[in-house]
Amino acid sequence: MISEKLRNDARPIWNRIFSHPFVVELYSGKLPFEKFRYYILQDYAYLIGVIRAFSIISAKSEIEISGEILEIARMEATTEIENYRKLLNRMNLTMEDAIKTEVAPTNLAYVNFIISTSFLGNEYEGLASLLPCFWSYLEIWKRNSHLLEKNENEIYIQWAKEYGSKEYQALVKKLINLMDRAVGNYEKLRKIFLTGSRYEYAFWEMAYTMERWHI
Amino acid sequence: MISEKLRNDARPIWNRIFSHPFVVELYSGKLPFEKFRYYILQDYAYLIGVIRAFSIISAKSEIEISGEILEIARMEATTEIENYRKLLNRMNLTMEDAIKTEVAPTNLAYVNFIISTSFLGNEYEGLASLLPCFWSYLEIWKRNSHLLEKNENEIYIQWAKEYGSKEYQALVKKLINLMDRAVGNYEKLRKIFLTGSRYEYAFWEMAYTMERWHI
Amino acid sequence: MISEKLRNDARPIWNRIFSHPFVVELYSGKLPFEKFRYYILQDYAYLIGVIRAFSIISAKSEIEISGEILEIARMEATTEIENYRKLLNRMNLTMEDAIKTEVAPTNLAYVNFIISTSFLGNEYEGLASLLPCFWSYLEIWKRNSHLLEKNENEIYIQWAKEYGSKEYQALVKKLINLMDRAVGNYEKLRKIFLTGSRYEYAFWEMAYTMERWHI
Amino acid sequence: MISEKLRNDARPIWNRIFSHPFVVELYSGKLPFEKFRYYILQDYAYLIGVIRAFSIISAKSEIEISGEILEIARMEATTEIENYRKLLNRMNLTMEDAIKTEVAPTNLAYVNFIISTSFLGNEYEGLASLLPCFWSYLEIWKRNSHLLEKNENEIYIQWAKEYGSKEYQALVKKLINLMDRAVGNYEKLRKIFLTGSRYEYAFWEMAYTMERWHI
Repeated sequence: MISEKLRNDARPIWNRIFSHPFVVELYSGKLPFEKFRYYILQDYAYLIGVIRAFSIISAKSEIEISGEILEIARMEATTEIENYRKLLNRMNLTMEDAIKTEVAPTNLAYVNFIISTSFLGNEYEGLASLLPCFWSYLEIWKRNSHLLEKNENEIYIQWAKEYGSKEYQALVKKLINLMDRAVGNYEKLRKIFLTGSRYEYAFWEMAYTMERWHI
Repeated sequence: MISEKLRNDARPIWNRIFSHPFVVELYSGKLPFEKFRYYILQDYAYLIGVIRAFSIISAKSEIEISGEILEIARMEATTEIENYRKLLNRMNLTMEDAIKTEVAPTNLAYVNFIISTSFLGNEYEGLASLLPCFWSYLEIWKRNSHLLEKNENEIYIQWAKEYGSKEYQALVKKLINLMDRAVGNYEKLRKIFLTGSRYEYAFWEMAYTMERWHI
Repeated sequence: MISEKLRNDARPIWNRIFSHPFVVELYSGKLPFEKFRYYILQDYAYLIGVIRAFSIISAKSEIEISGEILEIARMEATTEIENYRKLLNRMNLTMEDAIKTEVAPTNLAYVNFIISTSFLGNEYEGLASLLPCFWSYLEIWKRNSHLLEKNENEIYIQWAKEYGSKEYQALVKKLINLMDRAVGNYEKLRKIFLTGSRYEYAFWEMAYTMERWHI
Repeated sequence: MISEKLRNDARPIWNRIFSHPFVVELYSGKLPFEKFRYYILQDYAYLIGVIRAFSIISAKSEIEISGEILEIARMEATTEIENYRKLLNRMNLTMEDAIKTEVAPTNLAYVNFIISTSFLGNEYEGLASLLPCFWSYLEIWKRNSHLLEKNENEIYIQWAKEYGSKEYQALVKKLINLMDRAVGNYEKLRKIFLTGSRYEYAFWEMAYTMERWHI
């Protein structure tokens, strides 16, 4: 399976993701709230980028794939955006706060990477740029959910549990199945998947250090 | 309102659409079934094209618009495709019949027009290429639904009534409202809307004459 | 070689192109001038479309291919447009006449086909949509240049000889060589190449019948 | 003039570019050679990205603009790539060294920024993402060329003088003139131009610190 090969090739990066302090402290409840707040506000621009990338991929795909991709994109653009709004509200933030947040360098780089890849490449290359995010969030949950037992931050717990839900598992499974239909040049897919994985790591690092533009 | 201006500028073309023999005979029940069968089989490629075009538009749009466009695209890719499948079945046809149907010249031209326009232009130019189809189907229903009373062809009646449904009216209203948010060069939008309207007329003509490639 | 396979599969269409009355009468000098005038004025929109399509292909290609494609696109956008302007002038026409000419249905369909294909597919799929035009013009010259001996129309002769020039032969050779580097799904390339060939035939037919929109 | 407004709004960033140690030491000759070597090897991926972005912009533009953009893109893809190859050779490097160089984070982010912007936006938004690079190199030369007098590094001198050549000045002038034809939303152009300017600064910083992926 292509997805397994990709996963294997990215293992060293993913292992560092699983143990990144942002991730571990988020699950254990020790993450300073201002870091979480930063992360959530940055997440908006990334979510929009994901919707754009899925839209481009859908335009290029065979219809059966297109239907599934559009369903995911729509879910992101409606349910996910709605969930996101609710989360903001629980944190005493509004969508306007998210919209006017300056997109940090790593975030901007990541978003432009998934959009460029989806535009320049074929549908599977686009998918390979998006899969590390969706898939690694599930794996993070699997590896770290036991930490939730001692977590006393309700917002962190609620955030984390979404990635352990049956719906989320089904979504990731669907994306993996689509990836496994890929034909052609594995090397290209591999390079894209590794870059996406690097950006996943960098995104956690960005949030932990609350990265800002230096200029 | 931009939509009203576009509609006015396209009036001569639309009037010819409303009275096209395919349209009138379909509503009155006199349309030879082989012409309807041809039309329905061609419709598949057009539906796929619409989904692709909406996907491209969504990728370029502000997020609020993106969400609405994706909802429409997804509905086309799931509900509409499902309705389409059921209609085929009532006609003793299958999706395979539709998929292997050779796309007729006018249909191919129309599909490539909406895709090119959505790719080369901005989101409103893309919308202007798609609106004549959705909108004129509603107007056709308004003008011709009275003919259904004497129509004895259950398949034609069922097909027509979809365009008189509240859901369909709401969809068209949504698209018109999006169109009215357009800014910038009206001339470009006008040219696109007129070409889309011409293709609508040409599509009915294609179906009535059961157009084939001459080579 | 992929190009040879494509050429073989398109043979029946190409044979009809070679003997199309527009082509034969153009080479023999018997073509009514108003048909040639129509053809030349339509050619403008097609030339622009070719430049757009090559640009899209260039954006997706490996750099060595990109360089060659851009050289061709630039040549079309400068030398060819300049040659075109001179030809117009010899015919007592101006660029403004060409620009304001309404693009005929077949021409618009052809242009949107090459643009959509270049955007939705990979670089080789884009090339496969453009190759039938360039290549068939060379083959037309090979098969019909003997007719030029009795041709007394200086404008037709000058127009035709361009396609027998060393530069043009080298250009076609370059495009064929690029095509032969294609990897992957031959079926897709074949379908595109055949559609492009059909549009070539349809373009000659459009010019011979001086096609207009019916609406 | 739009270009003047953009330039003014970016002034604080540009001033920091003009005095960036990489820039100053390159002109004065004091830049450690390994930093220059790093910069030149990274430059390859950026140059390819510029060619891709110009290609996308060309596909969307009116034909007169298209011709100029393609001329620039082609020049980049041929003359510039050839000059680049010669420079590599003088530094005892080959194109293979450049091609196999891992693209650093800032470089990858910059390239994907210009490609995404050119794809998602209109032709002027694409241009606004590319202009800071071309224009600031000319301004750097104007402000720092006096330092070349004491510079004893022939490679640095030769590199710098290219940006003081008449050809380069004409190229920048052409791009500025195209930018000044922009219509519509200045805010969007401004945001893009500022981001491009930030990436310019970041690129110099990347080279000075010889940035690597941390994962």
